Amino acid sequence: MFEKEYDVIVVGGGHAGAEATAAAANMGSKTLLVTMNLQTIGQMSCNPAMGGIAKGQIVREIDALGGYSGIITDKSAIQFKMLNKSKGPAMWSPRAQNDRMRFAEEWRIALESTPKADFYQEMVSGLLVEKDKVVGVRTSLGIDIRAKAVVLTNGTFLNGLIHIGEKQFGGGRAGEKAATGITEQLVDFGFDSGRMKTGTPPRVDGRSLDYSKMIPQPGDENPDKFSYLKTPILDKQRECHMTHTSALVHDLLREGFDRSPMFNGRIQSIGPRYCPSIEDKINRFAEKDSHQIFVEPEGWHTVEVYVNGFSTSLPEDVQYKALKSVKGFENVKFFRPGYAIEYDYFPPTQLKHTLETKLINNLYFAGQINGTTGYEEAASQGLMAGINAHLKINEKESFILKRDEAYIGVLIDDLITKGTEEPYRMFTSRAEYRTLLRQDNADLRLTPKSFKLGLATKERMKFMEEKQEKSDKFVEFFRKTSFVPDEINPILESVSSSMVKQSDKLFKVFSRPKVTMDHMLSLKSVSEFVKENEFNTEVLEQTEIQVKYSGYIEKEKNNADKLHRLENVKIPENFDYSKLKSLSYEAREKLETIRPVTISQASRISGVSPSDVSVLLVFLGR
Amino acid sequence: MFEKEYDVIVVGGGHAGAEATAAAANMGSKTLLVTMNLQTIGQMSCNPAMGGIAKGQIVREIDALGGYSGIITDKSAIQFKMLNKSKGPAMWSPRAQNDRMRFAEEWRIALESTPKADFYQEMVSGLLVEKDKVVGVRTSLGIDIRAKAVVLTNGTFLNGLIHIGEKQFGGGRAGEKAATGITEQLVDFGFDSGRMKTGTPPRVDGRSLDYSKMIPQPGDENPDKFSYLKTPILDKQRECHMTHTSALVHDLLREGFDRSPMFNGRIQSIGPRYCPSIEDKINRFAEKDSHQIFVEPEGWHTVEVYVNGFSTSLPEDVQYKALKSVKGFENVKFFRPGYAIEYDYFPPTQLKHTLETKLINNLYFAGQINGTTGYEEAASQGLMAGINAHLKINEKESFILKRDEAYIGVLIDDLITKGTEEPYRMFTSRAEYRTLLRQDNADLRLTPKSFKLGLATKERMKFMEEKQEKSDKFVEFFRKTSFVPDEINPILESVSSSMVKQSDKLFKVFSRPKVTMDHMLSLKSVSEFVKENEFNTEVLEQTEIQVKYSGYIEKEKNNADKLHRLENVKIPENFDYSKLKSLSYEAREKLETIRPVTISQASRISGVSPSDVSVLLVFLGR
Repeated sequence: MFEKEYDVIVVGGGHAGAEATAAAANMGSKTLLVTMNLQTIGQMSCNPAMGGIAKGQIVREIDALGGYSGIITDKSAIQFKMLNKSKGPAMWSPRAQNDRMRFAEEWRIALESTPKADFYQEMVSGLLVEKDKVVGVRTSLGIDIRAKAVVLTNGTFLNGLIHIGEKQFGGGRAGEKAATGITEQLVDFGFDSGRMKTGTPPRVDGRSLDYSKMIPQPGDENPDKFSYLKTPILDKQRECHMTHTSALVHDLLREGFDRSPMFNGRIQSIGPRYCPSIEDKINRFAEKDSHQIFVEPEGWHTVEVYVNGFSTSLPEDVQYKALKSVKGFENVKFFRPGYAIEYDYFPPTQLKHTLETKLINNLYFAGQINGTTGYEEAASQGLMAGINAHLKINEKESFILKRDEAYIGVLIDDLITKGTEEPYRMFTSRAEYRTLLRQDNADLRLTPKSFKLGLATKERMKFMEEKQEKSDKFVEFFRKTSFVPDEINPILESVSSSMVKQSDKLFKVFSRPKVTMDHMLSLKSVSEFVKENEFNTEVLEQTEIQVKYSGYIEKEKNNADKLHRLENVKIPENFDYSKLKSLSYEAREKLETIRPVTISQASRISGVSPSDVSVLLVFLGR
Repeated sequence: MFEKEYDVIVVGGGHAGAEATAAAANMGSKTLLVTMNLQTIGQMSCNPAMGGIAKGQIVREIDALGGYSGIITDKSAIQFKMLNKSKGPAMWSPRAQNDRMRFAEEWRIALESTPKADFYQEMVSGLLVEKDKVVGVRTSLGIDIRAKAVVLTNGTFLNGLIHIGEKQFGGGRAGEKAATGITEQLVDFGFDSGRMKTGTPPRVDGRSLDYSKMIPQPGDENPDKFSYLKTPILDKQRECHMTHTSALVHDLLREGFDRSPMFNGRIQSIGPRYCPSIEDKINRFAEKDSHQIFVEPEGWHTVEVYVNGFSTSLPEDVQYKALKSVKGFENVKFFRPGYAIEYDYFPPTQLKHTLETKLINNLYFAGQINGTTGYEEAASQGLMAGINAHLKINEKESFILKRDEAYIGVLIDDLITKGTEEPYRMFTSRAEYRTLLRQDNADLRLTPKSFKLGLATKERMKFMEEKQEKSDKFVEFFRKTSFVPDEINPILESVSSSMVKQSDKLFKVFSRPKVTMDHMLSLKSVSEFVKENEFNTEVLEQTEIQVKYSGYIEKEKNNADKLHRLENVKIPENFDYSKLKSLSYEAREKLETIRPVTISQASRISGVSPSDVSVLLVFLGR
C-alpha cells in the first residue's frame, strides 16, 4: 500500500511533526507523515499565538533555516506585537495572535504543496526495529510501513490522560483519542520514560464577555511579521484584552482545592513551572491576590475566546463559579472547561545532539516527547530532527547548532546535556550569548548554513545577502563619514547628551545611548545616502543595532570563541570514565549516562564541577 | 455552569444538529448545541458535495424555509451543476461540489452569528427525563443541563463500530470516538433500537492520480446556486473526473471477499441500497464488469480526493491493490482506507410527524438516528425538529409539511408511517406530486409558511413575493398577448412544429413542446416587456415552467386536493382499533403501532389495504 521504503516517516502532525515533514521532504527525502487525524494537522492545541519572549526568536530562526512556522504564522496572524521594544534589541521578541483554523489550514496547504511529502491517517502503534536500527512503523491496522529513519512527535498523545476535578479519562486532546503502544515498546527496548503534565484553560463564548470592563491590548501600530520572505503584512488587526483575578476569585477557586487532581495526589507528574495553572499560582504565591488574565480571540470570525492565565484542572463547577467573578466575565458562557493532561515523555538525555536516540539508530524524537513545552520549542526540534534524519540516511555530516549560533542550539544542548525534570520552556536567560541571538539577525546567522544544506532556498539566500550587504555598507558609511559639530549638536542637545566641539566620525555620536536612527536620518548626508541606496526598514534597523551594540556584540563573540576552543576538545565516543579515578563519583556517573561529545558539553552537565573538567582536560592532552 | 434552563438542547453538530440549532435559535429559543468536538461542527463526513437528484430539491426547500444548508453550500462551493437539465423541470436537480474545510467553517461562523445559540463541547451520555418528558441532558462529566426540549442528532456515533477487513474498532468517524450511553437508556425507556451500516471510500492523494486517463466532469458553464438569497455565484470552478472499474479490478476485489466483514457475517446490519459498497455492487450485479468512479476534489487548495463509487470495507491491502488497477489510479497513494461503520438507530415509526418521539414528550430525533442516509435528509429533519421543538414549548401549533408541499413532507411521512429497514434516501420517485415539488419553486411553496412561523426573514419573503408577482405578470402577458402568424411561423418551422394560419394568444404556441423562452424572447413584444419590467433569469425560468407545464401542474394539484379530503378525516388520538372487528389482523397491529393521525396516513401504511381504509372511513362517519 506504500512506497517499498520511505526515506523518513514522521509520526504526528503537530508543530514538530509538520516541520520535520517539511524539512526532510524539502531536502529531498521521500517522507510520509502519519497522523491519527489528517484534519488536525498543525492544530494549535493551546493558545492561539506564536512567538513571545525567546520563543519569537526561535520562530525567526526556524524561518531563517527554511522552516515554515514563520510563514504560516504570518499568513494566519490576526495581531502582531514586538515585545520588549523599550529594552535593548537582544530582548525584542515578536509575537503574533493567530486565527486557529487558518493556521491549521495553512499548514495543511504548505505540506500538501511539498512534492516529496506523503500523508497517511492512522494511529502508529509500534516501531519496526532490526538490529538496534529503526526500519519503519506499524499501524493500528497492522500495516508495516518501512523507512530509513523515523521521527516521533507524539505530543501529549502517548497514554494521554485528561483530568477535570475528580474525573479522568483517556485522550490526547479534548475530544481526541490517546495513542498507545509506542511507550511500552520503547521501554522494552531499554528507554527510560516518565510522565509529564500540562494544562489548558476554559474556552468561552466571546459574546458573553463585557470587554468594556477590560483593558484593550491592541497590536503594534506598524506591525512587523515573522518571515524574512515576502509574507503579507497585517492591514487590520484584532484586539486582545486584559483583566485580572481577585481575592474573591482566589477564594472561590480554593473551595475546590480538595477536589483538585493537582492537590489530592491524583496527578503526580510535573507541569510547566512558567505556565502554571491558576490553582498553582494561588498556592505558590499566596501573598498575591490578583493575577493577569489575557483574553485572546481564536480567529478573525469566531466568537471563541482563549482565557490565557486561567489554565486549570479544578472541577468544572469551580472553574465556572470563579471565572464568573473575574471582571468582564460576569455572564461568561463556557465552550469547554479547562483540563490537565498527563502524558508519556522520554528524558532527553537519551538523545544525541541531532535528536537521534542513543539506543536505536535512525530514530529521532522531537517536541513534547522530549519533555518540552511550547509550539516554538516543538517546531524547532521537528525541523532539526527532520534535517538530521535526512542527513544521516544520506551519510552526510550532521547539522548541529552551537549555543552561540541559535536559541535552537541552546534548547537542544540543554535538553540532551541537562535533561529536564519539568516541561522545558525557552527563556532568553538560558542563552549565554543573547546579544548575538537576536530576532533581527536570525537570517544572517542561519540562512547561509541552511542554504549550504540545501534547505533554505536561493530566494531566501538572496534576501539575506542583500540585507547583509546593505547594512554592512551603511555601517561603513557611518564609520567613514564625518560630521561638523554644528549639524550634530542640536541633536545631542535635544537628548541631553554632551555636545561636541570638533568634527569626528558619525559612528561615534550614533553610538551614544540616546541617539537614534531617526536622529541620523534628519541629517541630509544620511538621508540622501539612504535614498540613493534604497535601504528598507530592515536595513536601517540592522545598521542601527550593528552600530549601537557593536561593543556588546564584539565582547560576546570573543567569549563564544573561547568556548569554541573547549568545544574543539572532543571526547572519544566510547571513552572509559572509570579510568579517571580523580573524577567525582557524581561526575563519572553523569558523564557515563550523558556521554558528552566535547569538554565544553561536559562542563555544562550539572554535577560536573570545574575540577572535573580540569581532570578531563589534562587527560585529553591539554 | 449553564442557563438555569435552556429552551432547546441539540445533541450533535452535523447537518441535522446544525440546522436544528439554527432553526430553534432563530425562532427565539435559547438553544444549546452540545457536541463532542466543536471543531467538527458541519463536517462533511462522506463526500464533499451537496444536492443531486431529489436531494438538491431538499436543499432548496431547506433554504426556502430559512435553513442554512443552501447558503453554506453556496459560500463553500467549488463547482455547481444542474442535473437532468435535458428532462422536464420536475427532474432538474442542483448539485454542488464543496470545499470540505470551508463548508465546516461557514457553518461554524453562521451558528456563532446566531444570537440565541450557545455551544458546549462534551459527550452527552444520557437524558434527564421526568414523567415521560425530557427535561435536559447529562454529560460524560456528570453535568446536568436542563432544557424544555431536546433534539438528538447523533449521526453514526451511537456505539459506532468501524470495520476494515477483519479488524474492527469503536469510533464515530475515522479518528473520532464513538458515543455511548444514550441508546442503552432509551431502550430502558421502551424504545426499539436497531443497527444500521454505512460506508465510505478511501481518500487518496490527488497528486498521485493521472487525470489525463479520466474524463473531465466540469461544472455548468453558467453556474446557478442553491439559496434564494443573494449568495455568491461561482466565477471559477474545479473539475471532477470520471473513471471506471474493470473486470480485473473486480477480480482483485473478489480475492478479498473471504475477509470482507460484509460477507463473512461480521456486519449484520443493512447498508444503504442505493449507495452500496463496491463489493456489494460486484456481488449484486455480477454481470456488470465496470462501474463508474467519480473522482471529487475535497476543496480549492487541498490535494485530497474522494473516490466516489468505491466505498468499501475490504481489507486495506485489497482496497489498494484493486484501486491501483483503475485507470488513472496506477500510482495511487492512500490518505486513508475506506471503511464500514455500524451504528445504532431508532426505527422512526416511533416518532410523530413533528419528529417528536411518541414515548418521551419534547424529545426529538433527526438524521441518521432515524435510519436515514444523506446530508440533505439529515439537515431537513434537523430543521423540522428544531422548528417543532420551538413551537411545542411555546404551545403553538406544530409545523407539518404535506406530501404535496415538499420533499421534506414526503421524507418525514415515509419515515414515520412506513419506517425503514435500510438507510432511507430520498428519490424523486418517492414523491407522488413531483411536478409540484420542483427545485425552482421551493421558495413559492414554502417561504410564506416559514415567514408566518417567524423563521424566514422579511428579506427572503420580499424576494419570493417579487418573483411570484413578476412571473404571474409575465404568464398573464402570454395569456393576453396575441401574435400574428407571420412573426411566429418562422419559429415553429425552425423546430418542425406545424405552422399556424391565424392569430392567437402567445400562451398557446409557447405551450408547444419545442418552443422555448429563447424563442419567445426573439419576439419584439416579449423582449420589450421583459426589459420594461426588469425580469431576471429566475422570473423567465419560472414563467416558462408555469406556461409549459400548466397542464401537468393543474392535474397534480387536483389529485393532491383529493388526497387532502382524506387528510382531513382525522383519527382520534387514542382510537381503539380493537373495536373494528372487520379490520385485518395485520392492519390492526400496524395501526396500533403507528397510530396514524388521518385516514390518509393510515392508507399509506404497508399492510393496510383499501378495504381496511373503507372500514375506517365508514366507522369515522363517511
